[in-house]
Amino acid sequence: MLTLDKIYHASYVLKPVIRQTDMILAPNLCPGSEIYLKTENLQITGSFKVRGAYYKMSQLTEEEKSHGVIACSAGNHAQGVALAATKNGISSLICLPAGAPISKVEATRRYGAQIEMVPGAYDDAYARALQLRDEKGYTFIHPFDDVDVIAGQGTIGLEILEQLPDVEAVIVPIGGGGLCSGIAYAIKALNPECKIYGVQSAGAPSMRDALVNGKIESLPAVRTIADGIAVKRPGDNTYEIIREYVDEVVTVTDDEVATAILALIEQQKLITEGAGATAVAAAMFNKVPIRGKKVVCLLSGGNIDVSILSRVISRGLLKTGRSADITIALTDKPGQLSAVSKIVSDLGGNVVGVFHDRTELDADITGCYLRLVLETRDQAHVDEIREALESAGFHLM
Amino acid sequence: MLTLDKIYHASYVLKPVIRQTDMILAPNLCPGSEIYLKTENLQITGSFKVRGAYYKMSQLTEEEKSHGVIACSAGNHAQGVALAATKNGISSLICLPAGAPISKVEATRRYGAQIEMVPGAYDDAYARALQLRDEKGYTFIHPFDDVDVIAGQGTIGLEILEQLPDVEAVIVPIGGGGLCSGIAYAIKALNPECKIYGVQSAGAPSMRDALVNGKIESLPAVRTIADGIAVKRPGDNTYEIIREYVDEVVTVTDDEVATAILALIEQQKLITEGAGATAVAAAMFNKVPIRGKKVVCLLSGGNIDVSILSRVISRGLLKTGRSADITIALTDKPGQLSAVSKIVSDLGGNVVGVFHDRTELDADITGCYLRLVLETRDQAHVDEIREALESAGFHLM
Repeated sequence: MLTLDKIYHASYVLKPVIRQTDMILAPNLCPGSEIYLKTENLQITGSFKVRGAYYKMSQLTEEEKSHGVIACSAGNHAQGVALAATKNGISSLICLPAGAPISKVEATRRYGAQIEMVPGAYDDAYARALQLRDEKGYTFIHPFDDVDVIAGQGTIGLEILEQLPDVEAVIVPIGGGGLCSGIAYAIKALNPECKIYGVQSAGAPSMRDALVNGKIESLPAVRTIADGIAVKRPGDNTYEIIREYVDEVVTVTDDEVATAILALIEQQKLITEGAGATAVAAAMFNKVPIRGKKVVCLLSGGNIDVSILSRVISRGLLKTGRSADITIALTDKPGQLSAVSKIVSDLGGNVVGVFHDRTELDADITGCYLRLVLETRDQAHVDEIREALESAGFHLM
Repeated sequence: MLTLDKIYHASYVLKPVIRQTDMILAPNLCPGSEIYLKTENLQITGSFKVRGAYYKMSQLTEEEKSHGVIACSAGNHAQGVALAATKNGISSLICLPAGAPISKVEATRRYGAQIEMVPGAYDDAYARALQLRDEKGYTFIHPFDDVDVIAGQGTIGLEILEQLPDVEAVIVPIGGGGLCSGIAYAIKALNPECKIYGVQSAGAPSMRDALVNGKIESLPAVRTIADGIAVKRPGDNTYEIIREYVDEVVTVTDDEVATAILALIEQQKLITEGAGATAVAAAMFNKVPIRGKKVVCLLSGGNIDVSILSRVISRGLLKTGRSADITIALTDKPGQLSAVSKIVSDLGGNVVGVFHDRTELDADITGCYLRLVLETRDQAHVDEIREALESAGFHLM
């Protein structure tokens, strides 16, 4: 059973092992509120997961430790379990679905785990892990639905109250609910006045649905940029705790998350993964009633694939008008490209890509398409360039 | 004159105003050394500059304060002066060269400064600032060659010794030399055994050249991704201090800096600007003798333009084989694209862009070029795909 004592004990056990991550004021993320960031993206292994995994393992019997542990994950939990096991002197085996990104597999291996790649998806890897547990006597480390794991994550709640005693609201991402239930339990036990808000992805709202419907069901599918909280079925323990201690659970869209990731990069110089930016997305897009309040947004992790990061940045630049992608239908006669270029450069647009295609199927037989990729200042600047081109008689697509 | 007392006094004055930035262990950046990051990229305004600017202004007379201050900068110094002036209740005017990025102009304005955009380059803005100083009686806040400014930056040295008392070497970026001279003075005064290494960009090695030649000269031009340290002429005060207290000044290339920026993103979840990553680049590329030592790399700032960040990431992915750009000369007959696609996908390459051009001038009349942009695992994976395509008879460019 979860108790405040257990969370304090976890805090004592974790002290020499994990980082007490910094709490950073973010003055411009959400005007009208005083936003602080609890930077678990800067935790060792790049996410909070090592807290729960380490505390869980520290509580195993010597007999259990000697058999080793097993877990199933393609992400932060895998790295947390691997490092926690190594630091506890326990052997670990992680089952990963075959399609897991090579970077996460390598990171997990580097922290000292054995790896088994399982053909199929997450559910197949999970089934294989349970099978190996039964065959070999490993202890299975659940990613969230375990009281010791929840107590480990709850230590963040104690740190928040220590670092910002007069906090009025805390916003926490929810996947399976381990992080949020631990933090909510700790904070409500010590300061019931402080509001706790949970955030899920609109593409994976399993806990929100469970709360609305009053019962836990599995989502048929989940789809979100926030892969760290793409969980089909919340935990039984976490559901009960969240139902009792969390004031509200809201959802954010992938576009809102991408905007939050970019804002954290530009304004705070911090990298977050999709799940890690959901709390900030909820604050930025007014999903929670925090106006005028002193608020902590929990940045749960920073393990984002750089390819995805690159796409998030490109998309963010397009959305905020700092880059523009303009396609023009030209009549195929000399001087057109030159005329277009002059208009763009006179207005201060910087051309970074030109694609000129005479064979596009649906172009008029005497015409062609010109696609320009530009660096621009803002949306008004993009509009100005588009209008100037149209005024000069060009047909924009 | 710079004294340890002055640096301690600056530390006392700055305490309630700035962040004591976190010191973070970076276990995998440079195997063989124990690397810690002093994260001034997470300082308010996104760089250390606010320290020197604030302390300088706090030391002005009431008379000087009432006239206001002026500075010239398109970057971190502008933001530091703007915020420091506002917090000291002093009016500030910043002269910026006309081409300054809109994002930096807006940030400076947001911190409370008045802005004057000056036609021309940095030197023109600088001349204009001095002219306005003489006409209006403003105090000019020099970006580095001022004892109070140096003392303010030197407070970082005190923090390093407090946070990591047994540090053996500190690596610090050098532009004009204010940051490095302040840190070197403070640390050598308290612990002469600790090595101090300065890092410049290979495209702007003005301080390194001055040390080698034994005299200060102006570089005719500077060109580097590390715009924060692109300084043509080092300071007279900073030169004297660095000559006495810094053990060695080395240089890093733009490619090395870009690799360091990407490593800090992937491994530490931290955004740095070019100048901010030079100390890590020096450590990663063995420019300084730190093997087996406990080392602090100073991350001086994080104000990188996202467009540049996006290019750094793309280039880093290409260089490390996590993306590939392959151009194939095809004979223009049916089934070629399909055959290529099959080879790529069978080997696990993920196609993210296809450009197919039948009109390229130097292609054979019956041929065409196919350009593929792929997501790949590493350089070996790229080689494997290229070899498979060549074995199947395709001609790679």
